Amino acid sequence: MFLPRRFAELSAQFASLPGIGPKAADRLVFYLLDQPDDQVQALAESLVAAKREIAFCRRCGNFAQGDLCEVCRDTSRDVKLLCVVEEIRDLAAIEKTGAYRGLYHVLHGRIDPISRVGPAELQLERLAERISRDQVGEVIIATNPNFNGDITAMYIAKLLAGLPQVRVTRIATGIPKGSDLEFADIFTLTQALEKRTDVQV
Amino acid sequence: MFLPRRFAELSAQFASLPGIGPKAADRLVFYLLDQPDDQVQALAESLVAAKREIAFCRRCGNFAQGDLCEVCRDTSRDVKLLCVVEEIRDLAAIEKTGAYRGLYHVLHGRIDPISRVGPAELQLERLAERISRDQVGEVIIATNPNFNGDITAMYIAKLLAGLPQVRVTRIATGIPKGSDLEFADIFTLTQALEKRTDVQV
Repeated sequence: MFLPRRFAELSAQFASLPGIGPKAADRLVFYLLDQPDDQVQALAESLVAAKREIAFCRRCGNFAQGDLCEVCRDTSRDVKLLCVVEEIRDLAAIEKTGAYRGLYHVLHGRIDPISRVGPAELQLERLAERISRDQVGEVIIATNPNFNGDITAMYIAKLLAGLPQVRVTRIATGIPKGSDLEFADIFTLTQALEKRTDVQV
Repeated sequence: MFLPRRFAELSAQFASLPGIGPKAADRLVFYLLDQPDDQVQALAESLVAAKREIAFCRRCGNFAQGDLCEVCRDTSRDVKLLCVVEEIRDLAAIEKTGAYRGLYHVLHGRIDPISRVGPAELQLERLAERISRDQVGEVIIATNPNFNGDITAMYIAKLLAGLPQVRVTRIATGIPKGSDLEFADIFTLTQALEKRTDVQV
């Protein structure tokens, strides 16, 4: 080896992160060694601070600094509307649309029979509690439209069927906007036909 | 914003690194928040330690922990053979061939008339001193074969012409191994014709 041990150490740590290969990792170390001390120090401090200060929101499971997340702290949000997602990255995707003004419930997982993940691991009692306490009017289930997401949605729908006056919905599946019918897979196209909607004129 | 300030802060710092866009930066933060505390702590410590402990080799300008780099400390290396490169990443490229057993001299730059970088900024007195002191027999100039690299090579060759008994060479330019003539640019092909060599049989 022609580079110092510390170089190889840091490069290996970068290379263990998702989307960073060994060459990109080396390039990052080359770059950082060329930066001022305080910039590297700031990155190290941000890493430790983020890890120390960010936890899960006590109410919805989103990332939060402090007790409640930014979404739950926002008093302009509709507390009677809940959206159930598998992961925080799904919440992030929905927030980026700007089209949703309710609150969230992050499962941090999904029912997955192959990996032996059952409903007990998904904070579902907390979901039922929230619905009763906050008198939630609608729960939108936004689990992924695949096998595990579908059975998770079905489980939650059955669980909530016992609660009166709460409407349970699922985000629509169908042909993505801007795409071509000829490229849609048969499952998506079948769903799009089955879930056809009346044309408003 | 629906994510904590610390999240955005760390993501922005990742996004300022080469080859990491805003989406990849967010994905890195999501990933790291999901890892054990001590793994994130270790990454932060490696960053600070690398920056603190790695400096330039006093002799050749490579990265070094301590006074001399791994190459200069290697007593099996030929001290009478020097290779001049622009940057440490060029040294890394040559080391990876495994075909070179001499020492290096890293310029940390190149003569660049447009950016007003002259020979005074390139540690060239140190190069001349080394050649005299270590009785170097050959200096291989491995600056890049582009405009700035060419004038840097020419300058160094003239500077060393005053020193007796040192052979000054330049790495060959030509058609890359494994490539096709039809895809070579005209400058490379012209050089390859001019610098043709006798076929050994």
